[in-house]
Amino acid sequence: MQTTPVSDASDVHAFSQEARDAIYHTIFSRRDVRSQFLPTAIDDAVLSRILTAAHFAPSVGFMQPWNFLLIKSEDVKTRVQDAYKSANAEALTMFEGEKRNTYQHLKLEGIRDAPIGICITCDRERTGSVVLGRTHMKTMDLYSSVCAVQNLWLAARAEGLGVGWVSIFHEHELQAALGIPQHIVPIAYLCVGYVSHFYPKPELETKGWLPRLPIEELVYFDQWGNTDLNQPLIAHLQRDQIAAQDVANRAVTPLPKKQSR
Amino acid sequence: MQTTPVSDASDVHAFSQEARDAIYHTIFSRRDVRSQFLPTAIDDAVLSRILTAAHFAPSVGFMQPWNFLLIKSEDVKTRVQDAYKSANAEALTMFEGEKRNTYQHLKLEGIRDAPIGICITCDRERTGSVVLGRTHMKTMDLYSSVCAVQNLWLAARAEGLGVGWVSIFHEHELQAALGIPQHIVPIAYLCVGYVSHFYPKPELETKGWLPRLPIEELVYFDQWGNTDLNQPLIAHLQRDQIAAQDVANRAVTPLPKKQSR
Repeated sequence: MQTTPVSDASDVHAFSQEARDAIYHTIFSRRDVRSQFLPTAIDDAVLSRILTAAHFAPSVGFMQPWNFLLIKSEDVKTRVQDAYKSANAEALTMFEGEKRNTYQHLKLEGIRDAPIGICITCDRERTGSVVLGRTHMKTMDLYSSVCAVQNLWLAARAEGLGVGWVSIFHEHELQAALGIPQHIVPIAYLCVGYVSHFYPKPELETKGWLPRLPIEELVYFDQWGNTDLNQPLIAHLQRDQIAAQDVANRAVTPLPKKQSR
Repeated sequence: MQTTPVSDASDVHAFSQEARDAIYHTIFSRRDVRSQFLPTAIDDAVLSRILTAAHFAPSVGFMQPWNFLLIKSEDVKTRVQDAYKSANAEALTMFEGEKRNTYQHLKLEGIRDAPIGICITCDRERTGSVVLGRTHMKTMDLYSSVCAVQNLWLAARAEGLGVGWVSIFHEHELQAALGIPQHIVPIAYLCVGYVSHFYPKPELETKGWLPRLPIEELVYFDQWGNTDLNQPLIAHLQRDQIAAQDVANRAVTPLPKKQSR
């Protein structure tokens, strides 16, 4: 996807074309990694940057409800993986026919392959029971921790690190493996590490689990269900969806390093 | 914050130093905007790019549960704002003493100021009732739509657009204003537009609502509660938190445009 030049006085705060391209490149080439982890250690400098990216996520009422558990212990990883295995055995029985067959051949976690696990949590009572912006939408604090996950994920991709979000756990079993108290919600268990390669598309798309939806069918105008395929925006969306995949396809080949000092 | 050079064979997939700096710059200077919207229209090309960024978010089981409602109608915005006003009057009564006084002087929405509203939703049944990765953590689909919000927010910041997430609504009143069926969850109502300026810090931090937490106190090793301030990572985190704020402070001044063709 090609960003367009910045010309207007109104978008004086826009980044340079090069910087904007870097953002989109990151977003389009980010993958959920399960299989390609390398054992290479992650420097503290790099780990610190991606954690700082997470900490600068938006949070409802500025409550910053997150903690970051860093898991390097093989014993702890094994306990986490055991929790995954028992839940995944249950999950398999929930699918039927062809889907079950496909499901059992998918690798859905890299808990012990990845050099580090990062569990991002949500402390719902961090700043008391009444939280600005959570007075009506009670899930807003959980969503804040998810924003931290996504910040970390994008920063990691730019650093060349793969991230895989494992969600097939009974909450209480994941809490037990990590010593997390009952009132703290584990939002994401992330496997993090360098990778042999990034796939150009999500694995579930490549393996025929589900196709990517055409973006223009997801956009409504002013009211739910109000489509209008004649809007000029629609043609932009169709072109950009194709261009975004092109960016991801090219990202399979490492980018040239412009600065290597 | 200064990213470090990429040297290792292991991080062959890392982006250039310039590109990584652009990612961090975006993450650290992103703000929740309520007050500084300009009426300037947003080009369809720009709108399309930030929506495409949202659509390339991760989603559990690749279900892509989101829709994007674009609100330009003044009538619809007024109905949304009315829903906000009634909820916010209730919210005010939930705070006490000094907090209530501060609360009532905060501007918490820019619904009619922003040229466009974007409501991002979650269709929990989009791909049926059994979803890969949602078999045990039932909130994973909601979290996918939140990842779409965060992608859009970061892309918007790079484009020079401010975004404000309004969450003070009774869900059914927001659904009514936008014609959203009961089974579709509105995740975020976002006010989007060009801005006169970005603040260097979150408004709630600047106005003394809550301070930013020291990141090193949020990090645990292997088990919940297991702090270790002697780990070399801690010094990195302390430096990076300061450096991240420096990046945000500098972002108040527009970046020089490197390419203006």
